[in-house]
Amino acid sequence: MLSKSQISFIKSLHQKKYRKENGIFIIEGIKSILEFIPSNYQLHSIYYLAEYKSLLPTLASNIKLFEVNNAELDKISTLQAPQGILALVRQPKATPFNPELLKNCFSLMLDGVQDPGNLGTIIRTADWFGFKNIICSLNTADCYNPKTIQATMGSLPRVNIYYENLMEVLPKVKVPIYGALLEGKSIYQTNFGAEGLLILGNEGQGISGDVINFIQHPVTIPRIGKAESLNVAISAGIFCSEISRNII
Amino acid sequence: MLSKSQISFIKSLHQKKYRKENGIFIIEGIKSILEFIPSNYQLHSIYYLAEYKSLLPTLASNIKLFEVNNAELDKISTLQAPQGILALVRQPKATPFNPELLKNCFSLMLDGVQDPGNLGTIIRTADWFGFKNIICSLNTADCYNPKTIQATMGSLPRVNIYYENLMEVLPKVKVPIYGALLEGKSIYQTNFGAEGLLILGNEGQGISGDVINFIQHPVTIPRIGKAESLNVAISAGIFCSEISRNII
Repeated sequence: MLSKSQISFIKSLHQKKYRKENGIFIIEGIKSILEFIPSNYQLHSIYYLAEYKSLLPTLASNIKLFEVNNAELDKISTLQAPQGILALVRQPKATPFNPELLKNCFSLMLDGVQDPGNLGTIIRTADWFGFKNIICSLNTADCYNPKTIQATMGSLPRVNIYYENLMEVLPKVKVPIYGALLEGKSIYQTNFGAEGLLILGNEGQGISGDVINFIQHPVTIPRIGKAESLNVAISAGIFCSEISRNII
Repeated sequence: MLSKSQISFIKSLHQKKYRKENGIFIIEGIKSILEFIPSNYQLHSIYYLAEYKSLLPTLASNIKLFEVNNAELDKISTLQAPQGILALVRQPKATPFNPELLKNCFSLMLDGVQDPGNLGTIIRTADWFGFKNIICSLNTADCYNPKTIQATMGSLPRVNIYYENLMEVLPKVKVPIYGALLEGKSIYQTNFGAEGLLILGNEGQGISGDVINFIQHPVTIPRIGKAESLNVAISAGIFCSEISRNII
């Protein structure tokens, strides 16, 4: 049985403001919880229906556990169809971004990606292709938004997400800077080396003018048909694949 | 001023059952309407806020026009933030699928893609790469679902979508059949020729067992990192790009 204040605390975490204030976010479903337990993230508490009780001893020690009923779970869940188990997770302390991290690997930079689902899908895709770092502009969607977490399908603990003022970061970048643009060299004729930073822009506006100035290699995915643009997560997927094809 | 019955008719079209029964679906936003007007689709009626009035004569003739206020638009819109103008569009008559259409091009087959957003993104991506035909299993999401339409970003009129019993279609397919699977030949070592059919499966279950039997070329996107899988629309994007790279 949850107290009113517990319920209202968890519900407050549906909103970015309170997630940030408390440094805590919500994950849902047993699969997601199993991805977070062995990670560097620290679980705060777990809320579960009785049917999950037998699993819990194997799941975690030192975590506060609360058995809830369906009505309570409905109240605290961010999903229309709650998945029977939900956990609160502490946000890791933001470590200041270090440009040295970009060496000897490929990283993504997101300039104003708005849709949490797109951000989550990009994180999942980065994890598939072994990209470890994503640098987000301050106006990019929140990686702890429940919709983002849902779309990552458990990949969040394996990708480092930084929120930075891009205009401060970009001058310090020492690796080649690529930009996904509607005009540029064909992605199929671009030799991505072993290290670099790929910038992807906002869903409607693309990469902002200030940021474009830092792009050394404008690259485009050639259009054969008539769609006006590609979804940003699809672009990210095609770029990650193209960058990785020579590694494998 | 809309009548109660008009409002309830348009609201009924939020549901697949009534879209199918009436052969009509909803599109929203001026951009989407502008993509549909020059297409083979026939517009049924347009509902617009006063600010759009000046645009209408250039938009369309022989279409019923209804000026609405914000409250009315809120009622009939499928969006949380309605875009000021909404149209009803007649579904084209389903033409029976003809396997000859698969010749000399690449087509997609979707086996149980559930999420309307994924379906819409796949349609948009197919349009970008000039894929003209998508054959969907009967349990694939509805291409007239408002979330699908939203995700297509106006590409729906340029891609032919067929809903078919795949077990009836597959034996008639004469072009090479590729399947996007977790195990198979690397996509980077696969020579996709000038024609073929690529099958993509359900978000959780992948391609169903019966359909897998028809795959002549199992192909996989090699995993470098640790994500369990890729989003189906991301896979579709990477495959469409890989198939297209030799055309351009």
